[in-house]
Amino acid sequence: MSLPVLLLNGPNLNLLGQREPALYGATTLPEIEAEAVALGRDLGLEVRCAQSNHEGALIDLVQEARGVARAIIINPGGYSHTSVALLDALSAFEGPVVEVHISQIHRRESFRHRSYVSRRADAVIAGCGAQGYALALRHVAHLLSAG
Amino acid sequence: MSLPVLLLNGPNLNLLGQREPALYGATTLPEIEAEAVALGRDLGLEVRCAQSNHEGALIDLVQEARGVARAIIINPGGYSHTSVALLDALSAFEGPVVEVHISQIHRRESFRHRSYVSRRADAVIAGCGAQGYALALRHVAHLLSAG
Amino acid sequence: MSLPVLLLNGPNLNLLGQREPALYGATTLPEIEAEAVALGRDLGLEVRCAQSNHEGALIDLVQEARGVARAIIINPGGYSHTSVALLDALSAFEGPVVEVHISQIHRRESFRHRSYVSRRADAVIAGCGAQGYALALRHVAHLLSAG
Amino acid sequence: MSLPVLLLNGPNLNLLGQREPALYGATTLPEIEAEAVALGRDLGLEVRCAQSNHEGALIDLVQEARGVARAIIINPGGYSHTSVALLDALSAFEGPVVEVHISQIHRRESFRHRSYVSRRADAVIAGCGAQGYALALRHVAHLLSAG
Amino acid sequence: MSLPVLLLNGPNLNLLGQREPALYGATTLPEIEAEAVALGRDLGLEVRCAQSNHEGALIDLVQEARGVARAIIINPGGYSHTSVALLDALSAFEGPVVEVHISQIHRRESFRHRSYVSRRADAVIAGCGAQGYALALRHVAHLLSAG
Amino acid sequence: MSLPVLLLNGPNLNLLGQREPALYGATTLPEIEAEAVALGRDLGLEVRCAQSNHEGALIDLVQEARGVARAIIINPGGYSHTSVALLDALSAFEGPVVEVHISQIHRRESFRHRSYVSRRADAVIAGCGAQGYALALRHVAHLLSAG
Amino acid sequence: MSLPVLLLNGPNLNLLGQREPALYGATTLPEIEAEAVALGRDLGLEVRCAQSNHEGALIDLVQEARGVARAIIINPGGYSHTSVALLDALSAFEGPVVEVHISQIHRRESFRHRSYVSRRADAVIAGCGAQGYALALRHVAHLLSAG
Amino acid sequence: MSLPVLLLNGPNLNLLGQREPALYGATTLPEIEAEAVALGRDLGLEVRCAQSNHEGALIDLVQEARGVARAIIINPGGYSHTSVALLDALSAFEGPVVEVHISQIHRRESFRHRSYVSRRADAVIAGCGAQGYALALRHVAHLLSAG
Amino acid sequence: MSLPVLLLNGPNLNLLGQREPALYGATTLPEIEAEAVALGRDLGLEVRCAQSNHEGALIDLVQEARGVARAIIINPGGYSHTSVALLDALSAFEGPVVEVHISQIHRRESFRHRSYVSRRADAVIAGCGAQGYALALRHVAHLLSAG
Amino acid sequence: MSLPVLLLNGPNLNLLGQREPALYGATTLPEIEAEAVALGRDLGLEVRCAQSNHEGALIDLVQEARGVARAIIINPGGYSHTSVALLDALSAFEGPVVEVHISQIHRRESFRHRSYVSRRADAVIAGCGAQGYALALRHVAHLLSAG
Amino acid sequence: MSLPVLLLNGPNLNLLGQREPALYGATTLPEIEAEAVALGRDLGLEVRCAQSNHEGALIDLVQEARGVARAIIINPGGYSHTSVALLDALSAFEGPVVEVHISQIHRRESFRHRSYVSRRADAVIAGCGAQGYALALRHVAHLLSAG
Amino acid sequence: MSLPVLLLNGPNLNLLGQREPALYGATTLPEIEAEAVALGRDLGLEVRCAQSNHEGALIDLVQEARGVARAIIINPGGYSHTSVALLDALSAFEGPVVEVHISQIHRRESFRHRSYVSRRADAVIAGCGAQGYALALRHVAHLLSAG
Repeated sequence: MSLPVLLLNGPNLNLLGQREPALYGATTLPEIEAEAVALGRDLGLEVRCAQSNHEGALIDLVQEARGVARAIIINPGGYSHTSVALLDALSAFEGPVVEVHISQIHRRESFRHRSYVSRRADAVIAGCGAQGYALALRHVAHLLSAG
Repeated sequence: MSLPVLLLNGPNLNLLGQREPALYGATTLPEIEAEAVALGRDLGLEVRCAQSNHEGALIDLVQEARGVARAIIINPGGYSHTSVALLDALSAFEGPVVEVHISQIHRRESFRHRSYVSRRADAVIAGCGAQGYALALRHVAHLLSAG
Repeated sequence: MSLPVLLLNGPNLNLLGQREPALYGATTLPEIEAEAVALGRDLGLEVRCAQSNHEGALIDLVQEARGVARAIIINPGGYSHTSVALLDALSAFEGPVVEVHISQIHRRESFRHRSYVSRRADAVIAGCGAQGYALALRHVAHLLSAG
Repeated sequence: MSLPVLLLNGPNLNLLGQREPALYGATTLPEIEAEAVALGRDLGLEVRCAQSNHEGALIDLVQEARGVARAIIINPGGYSHTSVALLDALSAFEGPVVEVHISQIHRRESFRHRSYVSRRADAVIAGCGAQGYALALRHVAHLLSAG
Repeated sequence: MSLPVLLLNGPNLNLLGQREPALYGATTLPEIEAEAVALGRDLGLEVRCAQSNHEGALIDLVQEARGVARAIIINPGGYSHTSVALLDALSAFEGPVVEVHISQIHRRESFRHRSYVSRRADAVIAGCGAQGYALALRHVAHLLSAG
Repeated sequence: MSLPVLLLNGPNLNLLGQREPALYGATTLPEIEAEAVALGRDLGLEVRCAQSNHEGALIDLVQEARGVARAIIINPGGYSHTSVALLDALSAFEGPVVEVHISQIHRRESFRHRSYVSRRADAVIAGCGAQGYALALRHVAHLLSAG
Repeated sequence: MSLPVLLLNGPNLNLLGQREPALYGATTLPEIEAEAVALGRDLGLEVRCAQSNHEGALIDLVQEARGVARAIIINPGGYSHTSVALLDALSAFEGPVVEVHISQIHRRESFRHRSYVSRRADAVIAGCGAQGYALALRHVAHLLSAG
Repeated sequence: MSLPVLLLNGPNLNLLGQREPALYGATTLPEIEAEAVALGRDLGLEVRCAQSNHEGALIDLVQEARGVARAIIINPGGYSHTSVALLDALSAFEGPVVEVHISQIHRRESFRHRSYVSRRADAVIAGCGAQGYALALRHVAHLLSAG
Repeated sequence: MSLPVLLLNGPNLNLLGQREPALYGATTLPEIEAEAVALGRDLGLEVRCAQSNHEGALIDLVQEARGVARAIIINPGGYSHTSVALLDALSAFEGPVVEVHISQIHRRESFRHRSYVSRRADAVIAGCGAQGYALALRHVAHLLSAG
Repeated sequence: MSLPVLLLNGPNLNLLGQREPALYGATTLPEIEAEAVALGRDLGLEVRCAQSNHEGALIDLVQEARGVARAIIINPGGYSHTSVALLDALSAFEGPVVEVHISQIHRRESFRHRSYVSRRADAVIAGCGAQGYALALRHVAHLLSAG
Repeated sequence: MSLPVLLLNGPNLNLLGQREPALYGATTLPEIEAEAVALGRDLGLEVRCAQSNHEGALIDLVQEARGVARAIIINPGGYSHTSVALLDALSAFEGPVVEVHISQIHRRESFRHRSYVSRRADAVIAGCGAQGYALALRHVAHLLSAG
Repeated sequence: MSLPVLLLNGPNLNLLGQREPALYGATTLPEIEAEAVALGRDLGLEVRCAQSNHEGALIDLVQEARGVARAIIINPGGYSHTSVALLDALSAFEGPVVEVHISQIHRRESFRHRSYVSRRADAVIAGCGAQGYALALRHVAHLLSAG
């Protein structure tokens, strides 16, 4: 039986593939989500995808995942660096949390070096491009099989 | 005749009683709101309750309270520390503002020590748990009776 | 043929004319928008107006302007100082961005001196009151005619 | 049987009612103490009052309260911001500690935003004026009855 | 009758059109001044122009404008970021002060983000290129007609 | 009739003349006080002298001067840099306050550059040695005669 | 034909499995290296392993990888936070660099949040335990196949 | 025989009596200089006065005082806080240097709390208004008679 | 003949053995003092003991030791981190000063890492528990025998 | 039976007695080591001595002491302030660690005030000169006898 | 044919040989300039010398060197640390810029460690005394011959 | 007779000519060393060359130069910014120390602006490329001939 996992993308990630491809790559979010669902199936995970530009909506989604999803993979986009409220929502989630960034944020402006979400995340994967979601899924599968 | 007062709760406070009870206590938000309405009635206040995880919705609610509510009691949750826009909305409200925090934020991570809302709040009550709302209501009743 | 331009106002700017008139002036937002549309017409610009208190809604509006509007004039209000996500949305817009502040933010509290949006804006106009929007429109007309 | 509670006021609070009434109100310290004793009686608390301008004397008083008082309500005045030694004395006290400030210290100079005592206090009440002591007593009564 | 306005340019602005045209544009200072005089005439302003590389000379010019000019438009160049003395001189001027920067200083090195002159300026216009002086003149005309 | 003035010296100033004469000079505190009384007599001031190593005692002395002394001349010694409580006591005094330092504190360790007392003092005289007290007295006489 | 990849571990990682297993897990370095070699073989990579506690030796190893290895996977251990020299050595390497941390360094002491190596690394994987090396290898295989 | 002393005033002090009299008093610079010359005569000092808004001119004047004046009394105005070059010039002067500020700079904006000149000045007198120059002269007379 | 040495303990050290024994150990201050006197006798030192919670009293004691004691061993407790006045008093003492801390202060909160007293102390011993006083005495004996 | 203890000296301590004797004393490292071995014998400790200028070599030595030595006495020299890797190695050691500094590092440049090793050390002894090693040995003997 | 090079000295460097010879050496500026002219002649450079205490004059001189001099050797003295305007002037110069400091500024006060001019200078030579100018000339000759 | 001088290069400088030639030039280290030996011969200096990537090895080399070399020319590479231990080793060397950087470090990342070695170096030469070593040698020759 598949284990439900929430794959959550934050602001502007709906523009993937269109926005600054040199920085963020050419793959679109629907493509990433489709690949994640397929890979999840191979790994025994049921990947449920969501994206929002609204901080509050992301918090709602994290709250709704409580008691439902076994893990959360989240790319918080710009809210990584500014949202204590999102950190608090994730802190109320019981399972593992993996934070993904498409670009290598530590090579960019200094305000991108600090992530509130990283204070809660069990693992952080940055700079692997769209591939980072696949790595995160593999890690979640590893954790849930070991748990 | 009762004086209308807005009791406003921010992100993740809808999880009270479920989230980290060691830190936030076991009382739920509906229980807190019911107690606040009842105590308000005793104190001559008509307590109107609202909660949202959305910063923009909290700003809308504060704006709608202008010319209607006589005071605002607000627990801004994680937005305390990050929302200049909420501070600005409260600055446009004419009556007293009391800021409540369930946990004692000054004993937690350093980024929780600074609150933008405190720059506007007439009073701050932190660390009294669910009881903090009752203290805030008493203080509002005191202020409005004296005003 | 008119060039479409988005005139976007952020949180609490719907209160213009009502909130702290000593600081923000007596003109209301509908008045400002009507004047901007009229002036735009004279300058060959089709000014489309929007306002929201929601960070996510502002990001949605900026994203929707991609490929449609030729320029964005934005008063990000309190989100100027806190929103990396709005900065990222504006970075994905192709045309010129002009940031407007009604008050002279550099004479106010120090946390208002830093604007994330300024990292993207091609021009910043602050402290000209409601008049600042007209100046921004003239500058946009100048840029688009020169472009 | 009444539970003993120490109500301790720090430097310059003996001037209450005389010093800057716009900031600190018109109630004098003896009036506050009399009201606290009376309210305490209603709440089943025996309120014992003390005030000193001497940091060392405040430390002595806190030490003497060990094993005697069930709770301490303290307004540390200017020592809030500078006294590690007072923090250490309070850390050696077994019961709850409630910190009270008459003015809303977070709206004042930045050096008043940090309180060493807040690192130990279980609750902090600021900006409620003389009324803040009554709220603190109610909270102590609540805690001791629940304890 | 025309209202006298001082248009003051600081260090290195005499090189406009020659220095780093990608950053500062191709218009020369004499051209800018001629356009400002012409536009001023249309707006009922008598624009008097001056430029100096000397901080002291700029202070002298600001002092001499007291009781003579009705407004000052100033591009303080590099002294924006370092001259308390120029700020003090402007503080002794009675009329409105508009600060202009040709480039968008908030996108450049961090030491260019802070301007002492901005502590006094009633309005700041940055990043509009040579066009910024025209916008400043319009704003001054607006202010003086309203005053 | 002579005007009473309090001349107050803080910690370690009782050692003047004995401690580090290269830094603090060879004059003793009794000599300074005697000269101050004599000079005060010439200037129409009744100089009353006190010294304590105890922060609380200094606060007591400042409080007792309220309604009695017309001005306070204070050398707060090491408490200059650390005592918010002393600042608060001086803030409750109605007359002028002149702060004196024997050594030039701005040439010493950086923690001596900040003085809480300077936030209240109407004038500061530093580095004039024992002579600084005489200058302070002259200034007080000037202020009281002009007041 | 296999592509050579250097798997480099820094100080104290030879103690893996023995040191603080709650933090670093129970797998030993030889086990990790063996698994990496095996997985590399599946992915078409020839994984060459090295470890040293000496900063200079790590620099030598990175230099020797120039022109030989196609990618470097490095866990710099404590040198992450202190070694500019190691950053410089990696900057002279032509291929991709993936930085791995076994623990989630952003949840630990603040001095572990900054990594000099991250200024060069194309990707960073932290908090995935021993599994992080496998993810890094997969990412390298992905990059080299795409390159 | 009179001892020559240079009384040097920096930028904007030529406006004394005209600029912000609430802050700087109603006495003009010529009046101050005349009083200083007269008082100097009584004290056996020949006071030579100069003022400039130009940093370089002040440096020239300080250099010319070498070997001529026995002491310098300087109010560096806005250059206090920004001029290392003026500090260096004063460091090359052999005699005592007394720094005077008319306003109490430690009660104003924080950038006025730091003075480069204070790193060289033997004494600092701030907040005594125009009277501060007289106190400085007395101190110089005291020093030169004792020297 | 025995050499007199002052063993001085600051605030809250009278609670040793009672307060947080996990941090401060189970030995009481009288026991420590008795052991110090006995060990001192063996080492040719006459150990005189004092303790106070009052900063001013500690300063008085240090001043009285001048010309009497040959060395001071001091545990300044919470005043270590806040008392410039105590530092100044110790600076006026002629002999060696050894600073003792029972707990290892560098492993505690960051505000305990800085000690004003350490700027004067010839030696610092931290984290050796009650044993630290014995080590300090041995070091003093060594210094005085060598001196 | 003697308990093995590692006495480890870091960079430049091989120059003791030759380098800046005013700061570090005249005793050489071989003399210190010989005295430590002798004193250790009296205390029931087998002192094993090592020194290296190489950070990696010190880490190797600390690792080799695991399971062998019962305690480590370490003077990390310049690595105290820069080596996270040495901190990590010591964190993997099971027994007590005593950090020794010959000079009183808190009286020297500010970069010497922070020691990474102090985050792990159970005790710190600074400023006792060569004698500090003997005190450290006594403390280790005390700890091991009590353990 | 000789290549023209500007040798520019800033404030107080006209005092070389007179001011603090222990720090700045005994050679006078005319001697330095004569030696530079002579050495320049040997190297095929026509060295033109200028000095000013005026920031604005230095800017004028740099501007006049545009299109004339092939390189600038500048010792900006105290303006190094404070003049953005001088930096901007040098940025508008096309050829190489070599910054010279007679003393080793990195061993002096911390405010001397930062040089705005260094942000533009192609090379910096500090601490070589008067000899530094000769080294700079050699470097310029090397650059121009290679260019 | 030739005077021995140590020419010491730190980490990654063995890659000169291969690594980032745009930044570091095309000359190799053996070429630099050969030129230095030849130039040294002309100047009466016997240049002995060494390079290491190991911090400890560099310290060893500096220590071995004591009593042997008359001066040290050192390019500490990345250790410039991180090595207190290397600073300490150089502090124990008796002769002049000249620090060389090939690139102009003050135009690069901010962590390269601070050099521990500069706290000891008598002179610093940065940004002159490979030519910087020749300038350093000339300076050393000048110093030793003058000494």
